[in-house]
Amino acid sequence: MRPATHPFDQALTFEALGEGRFLGRTHPGYANMVGPFGGVTAAQMLHAVMLHPERLGEPAALNVNFCAAVADGAFEIHAQAVRTNRSTQHWCLSMYQGDEVVITATAVTANRRSTLRAQDAGMPPVLSAEQVPPMSGKPPVAWIERYDIRYVQGALPANWDDSDSGDSHSLVWMADSQSRPLDLQSLTAYADVFFPRLWLRRARRVPIGTVSMGVYFHATAQDLAACAGGFVLGSARAQVMHDGFQDQTGVLWSADGRCLASTHQTMYYRE
Amino acid sequence: MRPATHPFDQALTFEALGEGRFLGRTHPGYANMVGPFGGVTAAQMLHAVMLHPERLGEPAALNVNFCAAVADGAFEIHAQAVRTNRSTQHWCLSMYQGDEVVITATAVTANRRSTLRAQDAGMPPVLSAEQVPPMSGKPPVAWIERYDIRYVQGALPANWDDSDSGDSHSLVWMADSQSRPLDLQSLTAYADVFFPRLWLRRARRVPIGTVSMGVYFHATAQDLAACAGGFVLGSARAQVMHDGFQDQTGVLWSADGRCLASTHQTMYYRE
Repeated sequence: MRPATHPFDQALTFEALGEGRFLGRTHPGYANMVGPFGGVTAAQMLHAVMLHPERLGEPAALNVNFCAAVADGAFEIHAQAVRTNRSTQHWCLSMYQGDEVVITATAVTANRRSTLRAQDAGMPPVLSAEQVPPMSGKPPVAWIERYDIRYVQGALPANWDDSDSGDSHSLVWMADSQSRPLDLQSLTAYADVFFPRLWLRRARRVPIGTVSMGVYFHATAQDLAACAGGFVLGSARAQVMHDGFQDQTGVLWSADGRCLASTHQTMYYRE
Repeated sequence: MRPATHPFDQALTFEALGEGRFLGRTHPGYANMVGPFGGVTAAQMLHAVMLHPERLGEPAALNVNFCAAVADGAFEIHAQAVRTNRSTQHWCLSMYQGDEVVITATAVTANRRSTLRAQDAGMPPVLSAEQVPPMSGKPPVAWIERYDIRYVQGALPANWDDSDSGDSHSLVWMADSQSRPLDLQSLTAYADVFFPRLWLRRARRVPIGTVSMGVYFHATAQDLAACAGGFVLGSARAQVMHDGFQDQTGVLWSADGRCLASTHQTMYYRE
């Protein structure tokens, strides 16, 4: 096997230790302010399921809990299929650094059967990615350079003046800076690309981090192939922020309007 | 301790076996078509955290995975605090029947500090619960009798004629039929009171069941006390349904418009 050349594939390069244990490392290209970008950590948890020899079907749901700051360096993911049904399978996962649990996750994989499709979450009419300028004022963290991010609406505040914008909704085109075919792992990372909704709503840059995030996967193999490394549109908004926690609900669409994933998370902040 | 008289409190009556293990039973008053109403099962998982002597703070997030049909009768919940930080704590939980895992869950509890509050998810203008008639055509299952359910919008289809309604959005008032003060356990059950969105969107009653559901808790003790056993307004819609899975995103408000919880789930169906 040739070494991976794309940083995301490098981040997903694990050594299988047997019995559902995988040895990986944080990737400096996806470093955040402290520790790695949570989207890549979530993708790494999913990737352990994808690599597991007992996996049945494709991911339908993933929930990741950020228990502690992941330290730069090595980690071990333990993945266990706790229940295998005829067409669905339930996974429990933990990421360890030394003896410490830093991440927990659950996942559901399934053999999906073709049914009629109905999509209530229509993609809003927006300018194409090519018509929107790349994000300016990127925070000085490595991971954000791995993505081509173009805010259609709800960009980072130009002035951190504590003014209440009254709205936490963003619409944003996103793609890997270095082109890479879309898969469910990279889609998982995309689901965490949105900056904290509180920063937008309150024009106040407080320390904030994801505590728990989930992704429901809707993209078919055909949907992923059709994206072919192009832009995905994301929508995210908070529903409420109070007493140190802020929720977020979001959707990711292909450029032709297919809902690829829905996502939700809750973040912890200090004022 | 006197025996509980409210069926929900009876459903939450556990015997503590020590080391985070709790023995409980399904409650016939919350029986569904097969096994118990998932909302009560989710509440039972949360309740094990609430009873745990090592718990820090109050619930902020809960995610529950329905791995297999819960059989009527006894179960054992194992709750473990896998990580305790200064102000947050991470839980992993499993429900066993015999040697089989039937439910897994993760939860986050936290000591919350007072911050400014911002609420993007405003309660839509609706008739008060008193102005809306109780749900008609209730399916013949026990659990639904435990709730006073009043659909403002998006009620069960009157005709199961496979017509596409084009919309899966419901607004519904809900309360315990036998009045009971609201707590985070009953709020968890409320988050699962919505009937499957596919039934509404497609006017087709297919077999369907929740695979994974999550609740982010926003209600303060004061919010819960203010509800005082009254009605809560729920909003739920699917974003996409295809190839055997349907997602759902929802919000629960107090009658005076405070966002008490946000919720999301994915359901498995057969056509």
